[in-house]
Formats: sequence, C-alpha cells, structure tokens
Amino acid sequence: MLNVLKKGGLLFFSIFAFAQYSISQHPVSFFTKEESLLVRSNIKIQPLLNESFQILKKETDLWLNKEVDVPFPKDPAGGYTHERHKANYLLMFNSGVLYNITGEQKYADLVRKILLKYATLNPTLKNHPQATSTSPGRIFWQALNDANWMVYTGMAYDLVYNGLNEADRKIIEEGAFKPEVDFVTKDLSPWFNLIHNHAVWATAGVGMIGIATNNQTYIDLALEGSQHNGSSGFYALLDQLFSPDGYYTEGPYYTRYALLPFIIFSNALNNKYPSKNIFTYRNSILKKAINTAIQYSNTNGMFFALNDAIKDKDYTTSEMIMALDIYTRAYGLDTTFLPIAKKQHSILLTKSGIQIAEAFNKQKNNTALFPYKTIENSDGAKGNKGGVSILRSGEGKELTSLIYKYSSHGLSHGHYDKLNINLFDKGNEILQDYGAARFVGVEQKYGGRYLPENAGFATQTIAHNTIVVDETSHFNGSEKTSEQFWPVKNYSNFKNEKVLAISVSDSNAYKNVILKRSLFMLTLPDQPKLIIDIFHTQSSNPHQYDLPFYYMGQFIHSSVDYRYAKNTMSPLGPKNGYQYLWKEGEAKVKDTIVQMTFLNERDFYTISTMVKDTASILFARIGANDQNFNLRRDPAFIIRKNSTSPSFISVIEMHGKYDPVNEVTSNANSIVQKIQELENSALFSVVKITLKTGELLFIEIKNDTSSTSDHQYRYNNSDITWKGPYLVLFNGKNINK
Amino acid sequence: MLNVLKKGGLLFFSIFAFAQYSISQHPVSFFTKEESLLVRSNIKIQPLLNESFQILKKETDLWLNKEVDVPFPKDPAGGYTHERHKANYLLMFNSGVLYNITGEQKYADLVRKILLKYATLNPTLKNHPQATSTSPGRIFWQALNDANWMVYTGMAYDLVYNGLNEADRKIIEEGAFKPEVDFVTKDLSPWFNLIHNHAVWATAGVGMIGIATNNQTYIDLALEGSQHNGSSGFYALLDQLFSPDGYYTEGPYYTRYALLPFIIFSNALNNKYPSKNIFTYRNSILKKAINTAIQYSNTNGMFFALNDAIKDKDYTTSEMIMALDIYTRAYGLDTTFLPIAKKQHSILLTKSGIQIAEAFNKQKNNTALFPYKTIENSDGAKGNKGGVSILRSGEGKELTSLIYKYSSHGLSHGHYDKLNINLFDKGNEILQDYGAARFVGVEQKYGGRYLPENAGFATQTIAHNTIVVDETSHFNGSEKTSEQFWPVKNYSNFKNEKVLAISVSDSNAYKNVILKRSLFMLTLPDQPKLIIDIFHTQSSNPHQYDLPFYYMGQFIHSSVDYRYAKNTMSPLGPKNGYQYLWKEGEAKVKDTIVQMTFLNERDFYTISTMVKDTASILFARIGANDQNFNLRRDPAFIIRKNSTSPSFISVIEMHGKYDPVNEVTSNANSIVQKIQELENSALFSVVKITLKTGELLFIEIKNDTSSTSDHQYRYNNSDITWKGPYLVLFNGKNINK
Repeated sequence: MLNVLKKGGLLFFSIFAFAQYSISQHPVSFFTKEESLLVRSNIKIQPLLNESFQILKKETDLWLNKEVDVPFPKDPAGGYTHERHKANYLLMFNSGVLYNITGEQKYADLVRKILLKYATLNPTLKNHPQATSTSPGRIFWQALNDANWMVYTGMAYDLVYNGLNEADRKIIEEGAFKPEVDFVTKDLSPWFNLIHNHAVWATAGVGMIGIATNNQTYIDLALEGSQHNGSSGFYALLDQLFSPDGYYTEGPYYTRYALLPFIIFSNALNNKYPSKNIFTYRNSILKKAINTAIQYSNTNGMFFALNDAIKDKDYTTSEMIMALDIYTRAYGLDTTFLPIAKKQHSILLTKSGIQIAEAFNKQKNNTALFPYKTIENSDGAKGNKGGVSILRSGEGKELTSLIYKYSSHGLSHGHYDKLNINLFDKGNEILQDYGAARFVGVEQKYGGRYLPENAGFATQTIAHNTIVVDETSHFNGSEKTSEQFWPVKNYSNFKNEKVLAISVSDSNAYKNVILKRSLFMLTLPDQPKLIIDIFHTQSSNPHQYDLPFYYMGQFIHSSVDYRYAKNTMSPLGPKNGYQYLWKEGEAKVKDTIVQMTFLNERDFYTISTMVKDTASILFARIGANDQNFNLRRDPAFIIRKNSTSPSFISVIEMHGKYDPVNEVTSNANSIVQKIQELENSALFSVVKITLKTGELLFIEIKNDTSSTSDHQYRYNNSDITWKGPYLVLFNGKNINK
Repeated sequence: MLNVLKKGGLLFFSIFAFAQYSISQHPVSFFTKEESLLVRSNIKIQPLLNESFQILKKETDLWLNKEVDVPFPKDPAGGYTHERHKANYLLMFNSGVLYNITGEQKYADLVRKILLKYATLNPTLKNHPQATSTSPGRIFWQALNDANWMVYTGMAYDLVYNGLNEADRKIIEEGAFKPEVDFVTKDLSPWFNLIHNHAVWATAGVGMIGIATNNQTYIDLALEGSQHNGSSGFYALLDQLFSPDGYYTEGPYYTRYALLPFIIFSNALNNKYPSKNIFTYRNSILKKAINTAIQYSNTNGMFFALNDAIKDKDYTTSEMIMALDIYTRAYGLDTTFLPIAKKQHSILLTKSGIQIAEAFNKQKNNTALFPYKTIENSDGAKGNKGGVSILRSGEGKELTSLIYKYSSHGLSHGHYDKLNINLFDKGNEILQDYGAARFVGVEQKYGGRYLPENAGFATQTIAHNTIVVDETSHFNGSEKTSEQFWPVKNYSNFKNEKVLAISVSDSNAYKNVILKRSLFMLTLPDQPKLIIDIFHTQSSNPHQYDLPFYYMGQFIHSSVDYRYAKNTMSPLGPKNGYQYLWKEGEAKVKDTIVQMTFLNERDFYTISTMVKDTASILFARIGANDQNFNLRRDPAFIIRKNSTSPSFISVIEMHGKYDPVNEVTSNANSIVQKIQELENSALFSVVKITLKTGELLFIEIKNDTSSTSDHQYRYNNSDITWKGPYLVLFNGKNINK
C-alpha cells in the first residue's frame, strides 16, 4: 500500500498515516503516532525538548536490564511497596512514551514484563492491609492511589499496545486491568460515583483503561458513572466541581491534583472522539479552571493553602506541567504562561511541548512575570455558593495578594473558616492559613496520611484569621451542616485599583450571630499599603469573640503591656483547636489602639486594632498537646472581646525596610495613630482612621448594597453625598472615584 | 604647561599626570586620580562598571539640589539621627568618588556643604544621649559608629580635597575632624588602644583622616596607637587579631566587619606610602585573612555564626565587595573568587573593579562554584590558642560542612562554647549555632543593640551543641577566665577525604572535668554521609552532663517514648541560659540506642546516640522567660546523663529525600542499628557501630597522639595493627588508608 500511495506524493502519505492511526487507534491516550514522530524529529533541534527526552531516557534505561519488583502490597504511603508501585506506573508510562518516540521494541518489552506481573498479582488482591478509610485500595492503602495507577498504567498500555501480541494483551486486560476496574466500579461504587477529586481520578482511570483496551463499557462507565443517570461520572464532575468561572470547590491545592485526571482523560478522549468536543464542554470549563488555578498561587509558584493543603506544592508539579501542555493543545499557546513554563523548566514530549519550547526560545530574554490580577470567583456549580476573592496590588516582586474566603465548605477537605483572610506580600506569606497537618509520603508521620492534628487543629476555626464565637468552630465543626450554607457577598468593587473594596456577611456559621467583614485595600501615593479590616458582629446575647492573626515573622514590638508566660505555660482552651495553642502572653486593654509590629524577611508589618471598652490581647503559639510534634510552632496574635456585638476594626500596614546587609532601617514605625468607630447603627457604619499623614474615613451603608443608590451623611457639620454602598475619604476627598 | 609638554607626546603626558598627583597627593584614600580617569574611560565599555556607576550617580544626584540634614545627635541605632548620619557619610564618600570620575565640581560642592555643617556641629558635641557603653560616641550612640564616620568621611574629604579652597579646608579640618580625632585618641584612649575590632575602625578612621588632611601625627597615632610602644595601633592589630594562617579571633561575623577598615586603610596607606609594603606585612596576612573569611561561609554566602553573629550577613555586604576589590589590587586577580563576585553583582569603580568585571565577562557562562575545602585554622597571634576546623565533603550543592570550634574565647564577642559543633548540608543549617540575639539597626529592639538575651542565653554554653556540666556555662561564664584558656588538639587528619578525623580535649572549661570530643566524618560509597561524634567526659565526681543538639527542621520521629508537656510547660532550669528553654518533652531511657529523625527542607537527618546505663532525653524549645519575643522559638534535643564520666557517642546521619512535589520519599529511615562502647580505658577508646550495611569500628589511642607510633588491638580473636592515634574499620577493613 505504501508503494502505491507514495506515487501520490507527500499529501497522500500524510492522509494515509492518519488513516492508519484511525484504524489501529493506538496510541491515543497521551499522544498519537503522528505526534510521536514529530517529537522524534524535533529532539535534535529543540534543546529543552532534548533535555526532557534525555532525562526520561536516562531514568528509564536504568531499568531495561533489571528485574522490576512488583511486590505484594504491604506498606502505607512512604513505605517500600507503596513507593515501588508508584514508581512502577510512572516507569511504565515513561517507557511507553519512549517506545513511540524511539520506535525501539525494548521499551514496549519493559512495559510488557511489568504488566504481566501485575496480571498475576492483581487477581489475588484483597483490601490493602493498611487500609483505614471507607475507600480502601488494593495495590495501595487507599483506592485513590489505585486510581492513579489506573490512569498511568492505562496510558502505558495504550502507548505500547502495538508492541504487544494478542495473547499478552488478553492476559493483561483480564489480569491487570479487569480486577481493578471491577473493584472501583462495583465494590467501591458509592465512592466511584462521588462528586469529589477521588472520583475524578477513578473515572479517568476507568476511562483511560477503556480507551487503552478498546472497551466501550468502561468508557461509558467513566463518562456517566455506574448509575448512568447523569448524577455521577466524568461529565457530572466537570459540571459540579467547578463554578461557572472555573473555581474548583475543594480549593487550589486539590485543584492542582484534580486537574490532572480531568485534562489527561479529556486529552485521550479528544484524541479518540474529537467530535465530543470535550475541551469546549461547559463553555470551555477546563480552560477557565487552569487559568484560575494559576491565579491562586503566590509569585514563587506555591498554591495558596485554602482548606487542606500542603505548602510544598507549586506550579512546577507534574500536574501543572501536564496542564500547560494540554491547555496549549486544546486552546492554543497562551504566552502569559511562559514565565511559568520557565520555572517548570520541563516540557512534555508532545507537539504542544515543542510549541512551548519554541515560544520559550523566542522569548528567552523576556523577563515578564505571570500577570497576577485581582479576581473574584464564585463557588458552586451554579456560582451561587459564595466565593473567593483575591485583592491584588503592585507588580512583580512588589505584588500584594489578599485572599478573602467566603466559599462553600469545599467537600471533605474543607475548613471551618468562613470570612477568613490570608495575606501574601513581596513573595512571602504574611498572614498564614495553616494549611493541612500532613507530611504526604512520609511513612513515620502516620503513614503519610492526614494527621489527627488536621481535624483537631488545622481545620478548626481558631486556626484561621477569622472570628471564633464562644471557642466553638463554625457550624460546630459539622461538615454536613457546613455543606449547606455559605456567606453572602454584600458588594465588591475592584474597578479602582487604588481602593479595592469587598464586603461579605455570614449568618449561618453561628446560630444567632451575624458576622460581616468589609475589607478595603488601599494603595495610595507615598503611603504604605494599608488593608482596612472592618469586622462587625451582631447578636442579641453576649459572647466571647476571638479574632486571630497568624502572623509570619519575628515579633518586633507591641503597644500593649502584656504578661508573658514566664515560668509556666498552659493551653488556651480545652477543645475545638484551642487545646493546641499555648498562651504565651496576655494583656487586658481598654479604650485604646493596640498595635503589634512584626518583621517578615526584610519588611515590617503592623496590625493596629481598635479597642472600645475592654478586650484581651492573647499571644499564642501552636504546640500545646502536640504530642508527636506534628504541628509547626507558629505564633498568633488574638484579639478577644466579651460583649454582645463588638466590632473588630483593624489596619494591616505594610511598611518599612530592614536591610541587615547594609544595616539600614527605614519606616520601621506604623503611621496609624487612632482608629475610631464613629457610628455603627442599623443604617451606617462609620470608621475614622487617623494616620500621621492624614485622615481616612470609611462610611458603609448597612441596608442597601446597590451601587447606584444615592446616600448622604452628615460629618463635620457638612453633608457628604455619594452613590453606592460605601465611601472612602482621604483627607476629606473621595478617593473611590 | 600642558601645551609645552603635549609636544612630547603621550608618554610625557602620562608622566606629567603622575607627577602632578605626587605633588598634590590627593586623592589617595580610595583611588588615585590616574585610576579615576581609567574608570571614566571604561564606563562606556564595561556594562557591570556602568551599572555600578549609574546606581551611584542616581542615588547621589537625588541630593545635589537638596538640603542634607546634619541633625543634632539624639536617637539610638535605627532612629532618625543615627540613620541620617550614617547615610551622610556614605553620601559624601559616593559623591567624592563621582567628583573624580566625572570631574564635575557639583559633587565636590555637595561634600563641602555637608562637611561644613559637621564643622559647625562637631565642636559642640558631648557624649551621645543614648550612650550606654564604656565607649560612648558623639555623633552616634557608640564610638564605633563615630569611627565608621571617620573612615568614610576621611575618604570623602581626600576625594574632594582638590575641589575645596584653602579656607574651607581649614574650617573642615579644625571643625569636623579634629574634635573627633581628639575624642577617640584622647578621651577614649583606652578604647582606641584596644586589641579589638573597634580599635581597627578607630585606628583606620584616625589614619584615614591623617592621610586626607596630610597630618603625620594622626597617621602615626593610627599606626602605633597613642602609647607608641607597639602594644596598640594598626600594626599591633594586624599582628594580634589574626592567627598566622589568617583566622580572625572574633569569628567570621566580625572578620567581615573588621576586614573593611583593615583593607581600606591599608589601601590608602599603600597609595601614599608604597614603600611600607603593607599588603605583604606579616607574610601577607591580609591575603590569608580574606581567603579564610570566605571559607567560613555557607554555600549561600552566609557567614557561619560563631560567637556573636547575626545570620543575615553574607559575602554580598559592602565590606566583602571592598575586600575582593582590594585583594585584586594587592595580590592580583584570583579567579576562584569570581563566583562570589557574581553573587555580589556589584563592583567598585576602581581599576580592580574593571579587572573583575573583565574577568567576569570572559567567564560569564562558567558555572563553577567557589572551591570550599576542608580547612584547619589555629587561633591566637602565635597560632597556639586552639583553633577552628571545618570538615567538608561533597561539592557544589551537595557540600557538607562540619564546623568544629576549639578556639580561644574571641574577645568580648566570644561565646562559652568550647568543643562546639555546627553542621551545614546542602546549603542549609542543620545543627545551628544560635548566633547573637540582636536586631541590628532595629530601633524597637533595644535600639538595635545586643539584647539582654544575648548574654542571658545566646552566649551561654547551653545554647550550643556541646556539653554543659551541672547547668553551668564554661568558665562559669567569666570572660576574663575564658580568655586565659583554650582546648588542645590531640590529632587531626584530613588527608583521606572519605574519612576526616579530628580530636580535641579541654580541661579548663570546668574544674576537675576533662572533655574530649573526637569527630569522624565518613563519606563512604553507597552510604549516607555519617558523622561519628565520640564525646568523652572524665571526672572523679558525679555530675549532670547535658549535650544539646539544636537541630533545624521538622521533628519527624523519635525512638523514645517521651512524656510531652501537654497541659503545662516549664523552663528547663533557673539560670545560665536554662531559664530560656521550655521543656517540651522528657524521656527516661536505659541501655539502648536513642534515635531522633528530623526533616530539613527535603532531606532527612537522624541523630542516634548510645545510652549505657540511664539517661534522660529532653525536648526543649527556646522561649521561656523571653518576655519581649527576642529569641527564635527553635528546638533542641538534649541528652542528659547523671554520672561520673559518661561517654556521649552519637552518629549524625544525612539520609533520604522527601520530594513533596512528586510525592516520593526515599531512605527516610536511619541505617544505624546499634552503638556500643567496647572499651573506654586509660589506653583505648573502642566504639562499634552496627549499620544495616555493615559494621564500623573506631579505635582511639588515649595516651599517644603521634601519627607514626605503632599500635595493636585484639578484636574478635585477632590482632589488629596500625600506625597513629586512631583506626577506622568498616567491615573489618581499615578505611583510613
């Protein structure tokens, strides 16, 4: 046939090649044959591509003449059998990629050898001996890892399909794959049908095996779930886990994790069934999801630690390298991602990998950074379950990001942290979210699982920069209740980048207490950046209200005269996370401004807070009752008010510079002199802040959030008028225009 | 004259230029006229030079049309007047440099204007209102800062000398300089005549003013001290502050600080009196000093924190930029310094600056790192007062540095830390020296001075990784006593880089207790790097012995069953630094091996220690009684033995890898299984360490440190023979050969 067609010239040859691939249909999971040939021809001319290829080849070649162990499952995460099985699926996948690029049979043989071992092992497996959850694994301690195995091993099988004989295929499909697919879709069908990142992996795993083994039943199971009623499966997950603007409900840490099966299976599906147009599904939801994911990172690439999150994960993870690759293939090259590709310094051996490498070479000397911007995301499939906003100011290394969380609970990895804020500045975490208490993959730390201190402390409200009422977490720490409620945004306005404003209320986290937090981020000329944090409470009974600030850095100075725990130190409370906090110091204050300055790297930060009547200031440190040293010994500054409806009005100020190399310090002192609540009525909230450099006035309308309503307020014997739910005056001038 | 000579051509012109400079003799302090012209002509062709020039010009030009404040001294370090006066002398110096390079009078005028203000201010000054020490300053709170002012202002004056008229010169010399010189040489003559870094600055300041004002009396005062008997002054400081091999007795942090006046004044002196050959003085002691200083840094450039030291200081400080510049001028270009120049990314506007920039450009793509190596330094002017050794293994990012301190006290900034060790690995601090408790330049922190917790904690023995007897610091914390004693090295052998060995004894830190610590750093094929730490004590009475390890990182696991301070925490003791440590946990152990694993960044470290009979294991945390949050809340792992002459035998193991990005963990567990002391007699110390991978045997001769003596030991029914004071066997094989 080749001979005949060759007469027709190159055009025919191409069509023929395409036709051949359509018939054999392998590989399609990771790339197509055509694409692998393009990669082969580009390796010599693209240095970055060649680098990626050589690394892959070097790692894989080590195993060509070695026996690969496929041990009987025994250990939890971090242990030998766990790490070996993980390494095995990556090795098979890599070897499958190399088989196509090099055309060398030895790489297919390596995969074959390992798969045959799994074909012997898998039918013998029962639940893993270390399984502790309701979704036990077989090869691994939890089913999630088995799903990971299915995704990669499915791809590996597809990649070497043409290098296997029929007999081996049958053995592998029956022995290695069927037991796993049956296990997750039948034994674990409730888990398989969840709306949760685990299910994304599980459906992608089953679907990938379906594509690799030409098994339509598996593909349908993956797309529609095992109930086939639209409530579960891959499409349902695409529908329900993301808000319409691309926010993933579990938060950025798990976005990263869930994105991989989403995009990798979409890519395979798109190769096999281009007509399904999976990449434009739901108004190109995956495009929005990837863009959003990256906006939820610090300038160093670290994902913001909302909900359960380990602070080591950045956008150089393999998931995000894959995400950029498949994004490029599906939606075209977006050059704003190049700074991220640069930091990843790794591309996939694909057509889009080549495209990124080429673009990268062209822009080699371009020092542009990723364009982080102020964004506002809704949460929930319909976008009606609260949301998250990131208020941003400054560029490059000077970027400030204030993260305001008023989303829904975020499934099983959610924290009880309604109206929580976190602050990043100059690349550093300034007011932290603790993240998760877990050392993923470290066997000595509870087998790498979530530690008991995660539920005990990290998820509790007191571990966050938001108000705790009566030492009880939001929704009394019930996930089931928390899933049913979310805060309501009163207003936000990000048009004027000098005055970013947002206000959100919550009336469900506590029965009979309404919480309302309005935030203003001011970037005024010749002034330090300021965040004005007006946190109102409303109740008909007295309560104890605690507002912590988990500041990161070296305590420098506090205006209050506190009693330090000199000779003995006790925990802050008996439960709900309080038992994990030592009380390092305490001050009783009355009618004053309380200030606390700390130093993060080379910058000073001051929290100034108004105390009207009395308050306690607590200096806390994580660590009490932390028997196994599972938590970091980080500090918190807590404002405690015992009253009916106290206001917490604070200014977070980013000021000054400490240069220990040149021993020069500048602006180490706060410019905030006074904070006054002039009115807090049913109609108005009026706050006056006296700075060394002038006077700020914030007026907020309590009962009307319309941006077009006209308002009037009498101040200093004259009437101020404006439109919309708030007004910010600096030295009498409306700076919100 | 120019016209006449021009006929003679270029050669004559050059000579003429030289002759003219010889007559006027200004500038000579920083560079000569000739050199400044060379810089001028090179700015356009050397990008790095141009960059340095533009930065200098930009900063200085800001002040050309502004009034520069010369305020009446009032504030401590970090306060306005302090920072202003500091900025002033740097501004004057920079403007003086620019005057010569650009030839523009406006730069001389700027210096003149400021100097005239000082000429008015200085005669009116008494001791600074914030002065607290025995060496008060006048412009600043301490005389040391006045000496800094003298060095820079002296240079500035010399640089603009030719741009001032005779009348102004007289006013400045009489008004600005004379009161300062008189003050430090007369009022503060005991301080001026000290052997201490302050005196280096003071003599360099007086000498620099002498050179700038052509005042031979000042120059003689500087070189010989005010007693003119050889016991003080610049020469005496060069003689006494460095050991013959270039170790500066106060430690690396102050080396950096003292080097600047040493080299800057030497440079000026050399320009004015080349025949004095100051750079070859004492076998080129300054050359050795600069080389040694750089060896005492971590791969990230940070100086090791021996004695009082702030951990923010690295080799990018202005002192070290100056050091590299003057080194190049005095001793020629050393290309091994180029990686450091690269990190400094700044050169001086001098002839050697040009030379460094040129070399740098040529080697732009050279990724070589600075060649850190194992070194051994003596301490004391004669090299007979103990010393410091740095045992190193690995290259580049894999470098391990074990610092062993057995020096003399180190003057007023010394710590009570005989036989202390610190460990750096992969660029990180693993076993820390706390350094100094001080926030230099931060006014809110005690005016930027040394904090009370420095003497209270940081200098005390318990703040170090060495043995404390009976909760009392070495020499009972008396500097005067400590100054009189130093440990004695038994032997060291760094020839075999796989087995680095050193042993040192101290019999003075405690009365009636002899301490002897032998260290072996092993880098064996296919094994984790190991440090074997054999610490013997010898006494005739029972004592409490504490050996802390201030580990840096996340506690992962301990083999002991400790009782954690759950609901209340108390300090470890009442005094000598113990009052600053919280007791977080405690375990009682008996006849066992105790292991503690921690994670630093992405690497695991395990300390395994032998317990023969009983011991307590204490988990401590800095912070008790730290009323003002002046100390970092870092942890320590303390081994406590109550006995007469217990041995502390430990293995510090660098193993495994935690990769949270790819979620892969390897070798997270220690390979050390057993540690046994087979013999500890008057003749032999024999230690056996059982690893998963084999058996290590260490035999040490107690009474003969000669490297040529023959020895014999009966082990496992056969006689082992060897030469020298120790033997290391791995699986029966002598690996020390």
